[in-house]
Amino acid sequence: MSLHSLHRLTASKALQLIRTDQITVEEYARSLLKHVESRDSQVQAWACLDPDLVLSQARALDRVPKGERGPLHGMAIGVKDTMYTKDMPTEHNSPLYKGSLIQVDASPVMTLRNSGALIFGKTTTTEFASTTVGPKTYNPHNQGRTPGGSSSGSAAAVADMQVPIALGTQTLGSIVRPGSFNGILGYKPTWGAISREGVRMYSINLDTVGFYARSIQDFQLLADVFRLQDDEIPKPFILQGATFALCKTEVWPEAGPGTVKAMERAAELLRAAGAEVVELELPEDFNGMQDLYLRVSQGDGRTAFLGEYTTAKEKMDNFLVGQVENVSNITRREQLEALDIIASLRPSIDRIASQYAAILTPSALDEAPEGIESTGSAAFNAMWTALHVPVVNIPGFSGSNGLPIGLSLVAPRYKDRYLLNVSEEVSKIFEEGGWKSEL
Amino acid sequence: MSLHSLHRLTASKALQLIRTDQITVEEYARSLLKHVESRDSQVQAWACLDPDLVLSQARALDRVPKGERGPLHGMAIGVKDTMYTKDMPTEHNSPLYKGSLIQVDASPVMTLRNSGALIFGKTTTTEFASTTVGPKTYNPHNQGRTPGGSSSGSAAAVADMQVPIALGTQTLGSIVRPGSFNGILGYKPTWGAISREGVRMYSINLDTVGFYARSIQDFQLLADVFRLQDDEIPKPFILQGATFALCKTEVWPEAGPGTVKAMERAAELLRAAGAEVVELELPEDFNGMQDLYLRVSQGDGRTAFLGEYTTAKEKMDNFLVGQVENVSNITRREQLEALDIIASLRPSIDRIASQYAAILTPSALDEAPEGIESTGSAAFNAMWTALHVPVVNIPGFSGSNGLPIGLSLVAPRYKDRYLLNVSEEVSKIFEEGGWKSEL
Repeated sequence: MSLHSLHRLTASKALQLIRTDQITVEEYARSLLKHVESRDSQVQAWACLDPDLVLSQARALDRVPKGERGPLHGMAIGVKDTMYTKDMPTEHNSPLYKGSLIQVDASPVMTLRNSGALIFGKTTTTEFASTTVGPKTYNPHNQGRTPGGSSSGSAAAVADMQVPIALGTQTLGSIVRPGSFNGILGYKPTWGAISREGVRMYSINLDTVGFYARSIQDFQLLADVFRLQDDEIPKPFILQGATFALCKTEVWPEAGPGTVKAMERAAELLRAAGAEVVELELPEDFNGMQDLYLRVSQGDGRTAFLGEYTTAKEKMDNFLVGQVENVSNITRREQLEALDIIASLRPSIDRIASQYAAILTPSALDEAPEGIESTGSAAFNAMWTALHVPVVNIPGFSGSNGLPIGLSLVAPRYKDRYLLNVSEEVSKIFEEGGWKSEL
Repeated sequence: MSLHSLHRLTASKALQLIRTDQITVEEYARSLLKHVESRDSQVQAWACLDPDLVLSQARALDRVPKGERGPLHGMAIGVKDTMYTKDMPTEHNSPLYKGSLIQVDASPVMTLRNSGALIFGKTTTTEFASTTVGPKTYNPHNQGRTPGGSSSGSAAAVADMQVPIALGTQTLGSIVRPGSFNGILGYKPTWGAISREGVRMYSINLDTVGFYARSIQDFQLLADVFRLQDDEIPKPFILQGATFALCKTEVWPEAGPGTVKAMERAAELLRAAGAEVVELELPEDFNGMQDLYLRVSQGDGRTAFLGEYTTAKEKMDNFLVGQVENVSNITRREQLEALDIIASLRPSIDRIASQYAAILTPSALDEAPEGIESTGSAAFNAMWTALHVPVVNIPGFSGSNGLPIGLSLVAPRYKDRYLLNVSEEVSKIFEEGGWKSEL
């Protein structure tokens, strides 16, 4: 492989070349940086990227004696700018944190750095990963469209081959939706499986740390490092004879033609691979989830932004001010009822999901909407986030404008490794879904 | 009041003197500092206290024009050293964070500072507020005894009149138990009612930010600033005719003679004040809570310390290493079962507690144990923490060695203001419980 196209490698492939001395971390970093340079004006995925810092870290990694190298030695990773990085500012896309340098790493960053990862730069986000007002970032497939949010820069950078992996967070749909809009894999692990220490909180009950990549194998590497262990080591998954549950959810009337077509095509592909696909209608208890999770996020947002509100509410988006002021007038009783109902549904969804190979459900209303002002709707994602189940967005489909559309696979809580195995096989057949990245 | 004894004032009283120009914030701060100086060698409540910083902040507060002063203008507060303070190191009692200076305030500190509070110093804690290995701090009532933990320094400092208010956190029993051991009020609000942004996490499902004080009125001031609002503004509470539920819980066989006597005496005092006291046996579903909350904290600890574990596990207490390595071999199924059962009990305890004025239950096994090596048992506290209900420790009783013993009042979730009103009246009658502070 030429040094010029190293940036196109998945993390697993790049690590292999580094491990076998075919390339140095510095060479790899230079290839990524060169590509970023050529594309940054069109994509603008980075809130902070210091090439000198990247190269000095890369050289430091190259100097680490072979026996002391970590499992992710040289793996470049973008970090959402709501996570502390000890060598770069963390600004949360808020004027209140302009240039704010916190001299510790967020726990996930610490784990990655200690495992040999090259902390590449900070990726753009919506304000505190909480609004739907887009940052400066464009969808790399089409500059007239949003990359989604709140993990906007992370998704765009991975799709655009600027880094093979990036960290994101999801409160409602902030990993899965941008995954769909950018045509890449997005993985939201089981809630609580990865520490959120040093990761800006919006909803303590919902926020989940996760990843973007361009191969499931890369997620497996990360899952190893983060010790995401199921109770049983899952066997390699076989599509033939497996039964998938197609779950349209109560949001289905909002689905655009691209998502409707993607669900149909996905069922065809699964059946062609020897799997069964049945339609799953969730029990009535799951109706009204849209109202319930908004009560939870509103209840949590009421406390999450109080500190900044007392500092300078005029420097915050109106939506955040409204959260603190509880402008939607949600009572404590309504908030607790929502928390308790959702909690009672978690073991239910585990039982339901465990009857199938996985649940297949939309990742977004349709392809990425026009403009970068709004990052789009999380309507198809938030129920699963609230249920704490792991979700993987698998790309492969496209909308009427040729932009990517992905679909979500869902498994019971803490069946993360199992879900990654399923996703590995499903992602292969979804490659025939009709969409190919031109990046 | 003489300038020499200003340190003995509750926060509400001190604020009143400042508001009416009878004292300056600087005078108040000097009185506290002088007292700290005279007592620090015997108590050692502080992980960091810089008198110059305190005085320069005090003078800055004195310069704030009257119309621009916050509701807590001049209120001195100790901050547990697991919470970020932009002007002091945050060390978590961990060698990994020696001298670590984070240049933002944790959300609760930010809210307090913006409300005019004087951020006085950082109080000692057990390692990451997670072990029961005591810090250097002594019980101010008896140097041969622990102040409890993990909020060791906060409780000791408030009991010893070194500050009127301090911030603590509770994962199992880290606010209520030290409150009992030190003979002061301890308040653990409803879980989620105060942001934990910038507060070190151990168990995301359990950790709760709360306070110590020497008057309920001080908690009311804090509750105003943190916008702890019940659905209904509670009326002043009247003991006459109220019914309290005496709940011994399944931990009762572990209760020492001091706690047994305190519960009896409390019932007498309540009855003497015209209240009814009935014994409450919780439904069978609540049996086994001790096992369940430990599964939850272990499940959460597994991820909470992974970052530091990958940095230098040899610099961590064995207990923390064991959490990451899941040495107790708790399966995901067991962890989820515990989370789901506890979640299902939360609406139950709300319903049960709402039938009474409050639940009265022990705060600790007995008076503070000997030595400062171990901070004691959280057996009586952790169930309530896991149920997310607000709890106030009310002092007033004593053990066979004359050390203080408190009891807990519990109300349904988000009845925080109601519980403070109940606590106000109960704390008055518990003053006849047989214990008086000699500090």
